[in-house]
Amino acid sequence: MVKIGILGYGNLGRGVEAAVKKNSDMELVAVYTRRDPASLTINTEGVPVKSTADLDTGKEAIDVLVICGGSATDLPAMTPKFAAMYNVIDSFDTHARVPEHFANVDKASKAAGKVGIISCGWDPGMFSISRVYAHAVLPDGKDYTFWGKGVSQGHSDAVRRIEGVLDARQYTVPVPAALEKVRNGENPELTTREKHTRECFVVAEEGADLARIENEIKTMPNYFSDYDTTVTFISAEEMKANHSGLPHGGSVIYAGESSDGTNHVIEYSLKLDSNPEFTGSVLIAYARAAARLNSEGVSGAKTVFDIAPAYLSAQSGEELRAHLL
Amino acid sequence: MVKIGILGYGNLGRGVEAAVKKNSDMELVAVYTRRDPASLTINTEGVPVKSTADLDTGKEAIDVLVICGGSATDLPAMTPKFAAMYNVIDSFDTHARVPEHFANVDKASKAAGKVGIISCGWDPGMFSISRVYAHAVLPDGKDYTFWGKGVSQGHSDAVRRIEGVLDARQYTVPVPAALEKVRNGENPELTTREKHTRECFVVAEEGADLARIENEIKTMPNYFSDYDTTVTFISAEEMKANHSGLPHGGSVIYAGESSDGTNHVIEYSLKLDSNPEFTGSVLIAYARAAARLNSEGVSGAKTVFDIAPAYLSAQSGEELRAHLL
Repeated sequence: MVKIGILGYGNLGRGVEAAVKKNSDMELVAVYTRRDPASLTINTEGVPVKSTADLDTGKEAIDVLVICGGSATDLPAMTPKFAAMYNVIDSFDTHARVPEHFANVDKASKAAGKVGIISCGWDPGMFSISRVYAHAVLPDGKDYTFWGKGVSQGHSDAVRRIEGVLDARQYTVPVPAALEKVRNGENPELTTREKHTRECFVVAEEGADLARIENEIKTMPNYFSDYDTTVTFISAEEMKANHSGLPHGGSVIYAGESSDGTNHVIEYSLKLDSNPEFTGSVLIAYARAAARLNSEGVSGAKTVFDIAPAYLSAQSGEELRAHLL
Repeated sequence: MVKIGILGYGNLGRGVEAAVKKNSDMELVAVYTRRDPASLTINTEGVPVKSTADLDTGKEAIDVLVICGGSATDLPAMTPKFAAMYNVIDSFDTHARVPEHFANVDKASKAAGKVGIISCGWDPGMFSISRVYAHAVLPDGKDYTFWGKGVSQGHSDAVRRIEGVLDARQYTVPVPAALEKVRNGENPELTTREKHTRECFVVAEEGADLARIENEIKTMPNYFSDYDTTVTFISAEEMKANHSGLPHGGSVIYAGESSDGTNHVIEYSLKLDSNPEFTGSVLIAYARAAARLNSEGVSGAKTVFDIAPAYLSAQSGEELRAHLL
């Protein structure tokens, strides 16, 4: 049994917890929280909730610590810190800071003789793997990533911060015409606006200036100003009834040629009922890999690029070759 | 530079040759043939055509030998034989005999301190990888593989062997209704007949009994009797004009749940202008991996399951993390 600790019990932590239950060789041994452990009830009976301070001893009986924190401030501090004591895995997704984060985790993991897997999930994660395989097989080509239709939690939060907004949900939606061109292997040049639209559903305070809210959303730099955005005001009841899930997904599409005029299109796509549960499922598959690699004497930082597919599976090499090759 | 030798110069050998040209770190050093080398002209200027007997010395200056033979009789003999002398790679696809082939290649490769990669291409190959990742991430689910629309060379050959047939091309076509159910995550039970249809285009001898030919095709055991098959007789000119390519492709679709009622659909699909050129491109990416693994001291038989994505790429770990993660 691979003994799993979960650090952080938000949407992602609960997604990891759900994934552990689906894997008969994995066991959740503790959830660690920065909140008062007594205040937290988790979905798995009989598993203790502990304080993050307990982890600081380096003595917790876990094979892999799955760190479910935010990429802005949590993970850059937490992952290297705990990589010095445990095998760790995170879903760090601040692209520009990956080299620094990788170096920090690598140093700590190597010194401790542990494995630290960073930037794991579906993007970065499964989508990244698809990009590397496609570029390696057909070096003369181009990759496109489309996200959605799905809820962007960052964009939903940005709308919620606007004055007069009680609740908001933002869907990222790929533009069908762009998808079609890419799937046809046309390798078009696409602007940000041509690839995705953004749909916002907003619950406003009674008497709020709806025109002002709509304008603030549509002109928000980085988040919305480069996109065609629609804003729909709805009731709190409608929000709860129709927008309480966190579906997501998307496609990595690669078009390349193997010789002049001989074209190939490779597509990897996901349709996810729950973004955090799928991300949690990916983290748990790679947690298995982390434990296995470390038991073979491997240490240091890794990404999904560095880990052979067989390490993710509970099945043996013989079983994989017999049933899935 | 990775020095590549190609053994066998049929469709697949030429596909490998095309792929070498697209990879600036790869170099074709020789094509080996069982035919009279003087009778063979290849598409790469300045590269010698040699006899397979030259390989028997074990002294050819190649880093990886790409063995382009048939799975029925060529590869079971050739791959273990040359694995005892060189790093080798093949596209062995007789599923039932994989354990035996793997064991034979493993024994020879390990004794020689070389790497032997078997069953590489797109199915087995890239499709197999998709199955393993999907099963590992969502163990509670089911995979479906659809092939086509594309030319099955084995089925085309089977039709060509019928008396009165001058030429034939067989397309495997997925049934749209089945594809749709699977993509919707319905996890249907599908018979062979419900998954694919077979379309045959046949050039018959003048005066041949067309009804007899059609009946022989449709009732042929293993190849056609379990499928809904259509047979269309065409002229030799039409065959040449409209059916001279070898397009193929298909999809691996996986539907699984991360918790009760929370469903996810993963799809990996290929649309290929040329089956042998794409297969050749996959072989060359894994040839790079074979050379690199062997230079690190690794030996023995491997499949695509055992090799981390980064090993396929000419880019460094830093470059991959910066651009594709």
